[in-house]
Amino acid sequence: MARDPQEKPIAALVAPDILELLVESPADIAAETEEMHPADLAAVAELLPREQVKALLNALPRERAADVLEYLDEDLRVSVLEEIPTEQAAALVSQMTPDDRTDVLEDIDEDVADDIVSELSAEARAETERLMEFDPDTAGGLMTTEFVSVSGDFLVDEALEQVRSLARSGRREATYNIYATDAQGRVAGVLSLRELLAAAPGAKISDVAWTEVVSVSPGANRQEVARFTADYDLMAVPVVSESGHLMGVVTVDDVIDAIEDVQTEDIQKLGGMEALDEPYTSMSFWGMIRKRAGWLCVLFVGELLTASAMQRFEDELKRALVLSLFVPLIVSSGGNSGSQATSLIIRAMALGELKLRDWWRVALREARAGFTLGVILGVLGFVRIMVWQLSGLWDYGPHYRLLAITVGLAVVGVVAFGSLIGSMLPFALRRFNLDPASASAPFVATLVDVTGLVIYFLVALMLLGGTLL
Amino acid sequence: MARDPQEKPIAALVAPDILELLVESPADIAAETEEMHPADLAAVAELLPREQVKALLNALPRERAADVLEYLDEDLRVSVLEEIPTEQAAALVSQMTPDDRTDVLEDIDEDVADDIVSELSAEARAETERLMEFDPDTAGGLMTTEFVSVSGDFLVDEALEQVRSLARSGRREATYNIYATDAQGRVAGVLSLRELLAAAPGAKISDVAWTEVVSVSPGANRQEVARFTADYDLMAVPVVSESGHLMGVVTVDDVIDAIEDVQTEDIQKLGGMEALDEPYTSMSFWGMIRKRAGWLCVLFVGELLTASAMQRFEDELKRALVLSLFVPLIVSSGGNSGSQATSLIIRAMALGELKLRDWWRVALREARAGFTLGVILGVLGFVRIMVWQLSGLWDYGPHYRLLAITVGLAVVGVVAFGSLIGSMLPFALRRFNLDPASASAPFVATLVDVTGLVIYFLVALMLLGGTLL
Repeated sequence: MARDPQEKPIAALVAPDILELLVESPADIAAETEEMHPADLAAVAELLPREQVKALLNALPRERAADVLEYLDEDLRVSVLEEIPTEQAAALVSQMTPDDRTDVLEDIDEDVADDIVSELSAEARAETERLMEFDPDTAGGLMTTEFVSVSGDFLVDEALEQVRSLARSGRREATYNIYATDAQGRVAGVLSLRELLAAAPGAKISDVAWTEVVSVSPGANRQEVARFTADYDLMAVPVVSESGHLMGVVTVDDVIDAIEDVQTEDIQKLGGMEALDEPYTSMSFWGMIRKRAGWLCVLFVGELLTASAMQRFEDELKRALVLSLFVPLIVSSGGNSGSQATSLIIRAMALGELKLRDWWRVALREARAGFTLGVILGVLGFVRIMVWQLSGLWDYGPHYRLLAITVGLAVVGVVAFGSLIGSMLPFALRRFNLDPASASAPFVATLVDVTGLVIYFLVALMLLGGTLL
Repeated sequence: MARDPQEKPIAALVAPDILELLVESPADIAAETEEMHPADLAAVAELLPREQVKALLNALPRERAADVLEYLDEDLRVSVLEEIPTEQAAALVSQMTPDDRTDVLEDIDEDVADDIVSELSAEARAETERLMEFDPDTAGGLMTTEFVSVSGDFLVDEALEQVRSLARSGRREATYNIYATDAQGRVAGVLSLRELLAAAPGAKISDVAWTEVVSVSPGANRQEVARFTADYDLMAVPVVSESGHLMGVVTVDDVIDAIEDVQTEDIQKLGGMEALDEPYTSMSFWGMIRKRAGWLCVLFVGELLTASAMQRFEDELKRALVLSLFVPLIVSSGGNSGSQATSLIIRAMALGELKLRDWWRVALREARAGFTLGVILGVLGFVRIMVWQLSGLWDYGPHYRLLAITVGLAVVGVVAFGSLIGSMLPFALRRFNLDPASASAPFVATLVDVTGLVIYFLVALMLLGGTLL
C-alpha cells in the first residue's frame, strides 16, 4: 500500500511482530519482510535488542541482509560488523556495490576491515582496495565501479541485451546511463536507458549517443560533483581519468548524501565550531566539547581584545560613564549586520553565483547596503535616547542631544563596517584557499566588536570633545 | 569528449562562434549545437546580447529551445518570455514537462502567463492550471504529471512495450519507475525500469512489482519530500491522493533543487534575515535592504534592552568602572556559545535526528556542555586578568583577584545559559509550528545579551559587595 510521511513510522508498528517472529520462527522472517523497503527494515533493526539485530541479518537472504546493513545507523552497523564472524561480514559486504562496501569498511576498525577484505574474492578485494585509496570526499571516493559501458560499434539491441543480462545477473550496476567507448576504450558518448529503449534497434550506439559527456575527474571534490549534478540534472556523474577512460560513476543518491553532509558542515561552521562529522545525537559528549571548545576559545581570545580597547578608552569612560550604557548595543549591531552579510556571501559562493573576481562588486554593494542599514538603525538609536530623555524615563545629562547623535552616527559607522567586513571575509578566506564557510557569524562578530568600540569612542571624541569629554 | 569542471567554462569558449553563426547563417545553428547540453547552451545564451537570445531560440528546434529556456537564468527567461509573441511563448512552454512549464509560468507576469496558458492545447492548459493551484513548495507543486503507470494485470513485455512507445513518442514521462495499478486504478506496486528489464517477459506486473510503495501526499512540504528521497534513495517520489490514486511524481533533479533552496533559506535565516528568495547577484538593491532591515531592526530594538540593563546597574558602574571593561567580552561569550548550540540543533532537526520530544534530553546535554565550555572560557578570562595585573600591563586596582573571579564565574554562567537558550529556542519555535531555522545566531545572541549582563552584575554584586561595590 501507498504510505505517507505523516503516518506513524512503519518501523515502530512492525518491530514487535518481527521480534516475536525472530524468537519463534526465524525461518519465516525472509518471506514476511520481503516487501519491506530495506530502509524500513533497518529502522526496525535499530529498535531491536542488539543480539536480535544479528539474528535478523542471519535470517535474511545475504543480498537482503547487505541492503539492510547499508541503511543501518552508522554506530550500529559498525558494531555489528565488528562483532560477527569475519567470513559472515565478508559475505555480507561482498553483496554491496563497490562504493557502499568501501564506505562501510572505512567506518570500522582498520584491523577488522583488513581481515574482512582478505576474505573477499580476489576481484572484489582488488576493487575495494583501489577505491579505498581515494579521499572519501572526492569523486573517486564517491563513485561506484559497476556501470554499463559498450563499444560505440554495438547496435542498440545488442546494448539493450547486455543491460538486460546484467540486470538479470543480480549485479547492481548503475544503469540509468549507458556509456559508449571508442576503439581505445575511451568515453565517446552517453545515452540514458530511456533513450536506448526509444532508439531504433538496428542503429549504431555511436550514432544515437550524445557525444558531449559531462564528466568529472577522480580528484574533483564533492561540492563540484554536486554542482554538476544540480546544474545538468544528472542521474549519474561519470568519473573519467586523464586518459579519457571511464573509471566509475557517482550515482545521484550518493550526491544527495554528499550535498546534505556539506550543508551540515557549512551550518556548523557558520555557527562557529568545527564540523562534527557525526550526528549530534550519537556523538560522544567529550568529542563534541572538543569540536566546540576550539573555536570558542579562539573567539574568546579575540574578544579579550575588546577589554584592551575598553582599557584604552578608560579615561573617556571615567569622564562620561553614560557612554558605557550603549557599548553592548553598538557592539552587537556590528555583529548582527556582519553576520547577515557573511551568510549571504557564503551561500552565494556555495551556489556558484559569486566568484573570487566579484569581490569588488560585492564590496561596493555591501558598503552601500551597510550604510543604508546603518542609517535606519542609527535613527532608531537616536530616537530611543531622545524619547527616554524627553519623556523623563531616564536622564542622560545636559548633553543628551549630542549623546544621541553620537550613538546614532556610531551605529551607522559600525553597521557599514560590519557589512563590509562580513562580506569580504569569505572572499579573503577563499583567496587563501580556505573554506569560505569558516567565516562564521561569531568570527565576524568578534572581528567587528573591537573595531566597533574604536569607532564608537572616536565618534564620541569628535562630537563630545569639549563638552562631556 | 569528456569534460571536466576544472576546465574553462565551455560557454565562454563557444559563445563568440555561436554569435557569429547567428548573424551569418542562423540556419546552421541547430546542427552545430546539436550535441551541446542544454545547460551549456543556456550559459552561452546568457553571454549573448539580449536580442540575439531570441534569435538563438528561434533558430533552434522547438523542443531544444524549450530545453534551453528551462536552464536559463530566471531573470533572462522571464524577460524573454514576456517579450516574444504569445503564440511563440506558448509553443515553447508546451514542449516542457508539466512541472517545469508550471514553474516557468509562475515566475512571469500574471497577465502574460494567462495569455500564454490560453494559447495552450486544451489538455496542456487543464494540466497547467491544475498544477498551478498547488503551493510550489509542496509535493503537488514539485510533481510532474507525466509518468508511466500500467495495470497490474499487464505482462512484463506489454509494460515494456508501453514504455518504449512512450519514449519514442518524444513525450517526457519520468520513466525511472513504472507504477502498477489495481482494478480501481489505485497504486498497488512499483518497479524500476531496470527491474522491468530484468523480469521474465511473461510474468505479470503485479507479481514482480514491489507492493510497498513509499509515497507522499500532495500537501507534503518539500523538506518531507527531500527527507524521503534521501532516506530511501529514491529516483522519483510518487505523489498519491487520499483515495490511493497516483497524481504525479517528483523527480530527483527537482528534489535536489528543493534541497538547495531550503538550504539557502536556512543559511540566510540563520544569518539573521528573511530568506531572499532570489539570487544575491540578481536581486534589486532595495529588495535586499527590505529583507535585511526587518530583522536587523527587530534585533536592534531587542538590543536596546541592553541599554536599559546597563542603566539599571549604573550605580554599580559608577562605583566600579573597571566592570565596564569586560562588558563586551561577557556579552559576546554568551552570544557565541548560543549560536553554536542553535546551529547544531537546527541542523539536527532538519536531518530528522531530533524530534520535538527530544527537547529535555537536549536541554540536559546542553546544560552540561554549556557548563563545561563555560569553565574552559572562564579559566581563560581569569588567567587573562591575572596575567595583565601581575605583569604590570594594567592595574585593575587592589581587588583584582576578586575581579578576576567575578569575570571567570560570570563567563561560566553566561556560556551555560547561552548554550541552553540557543538549543531550546529551535524547539520552542517548532512547538509553535514556526520554522526552527528562524532561531538565527543574531536572534539568540540578542536574547542572551541582556541576560548575560544581568548575570554579570549579579555575580559582581555577590562577590564584590563590601569591597568594590
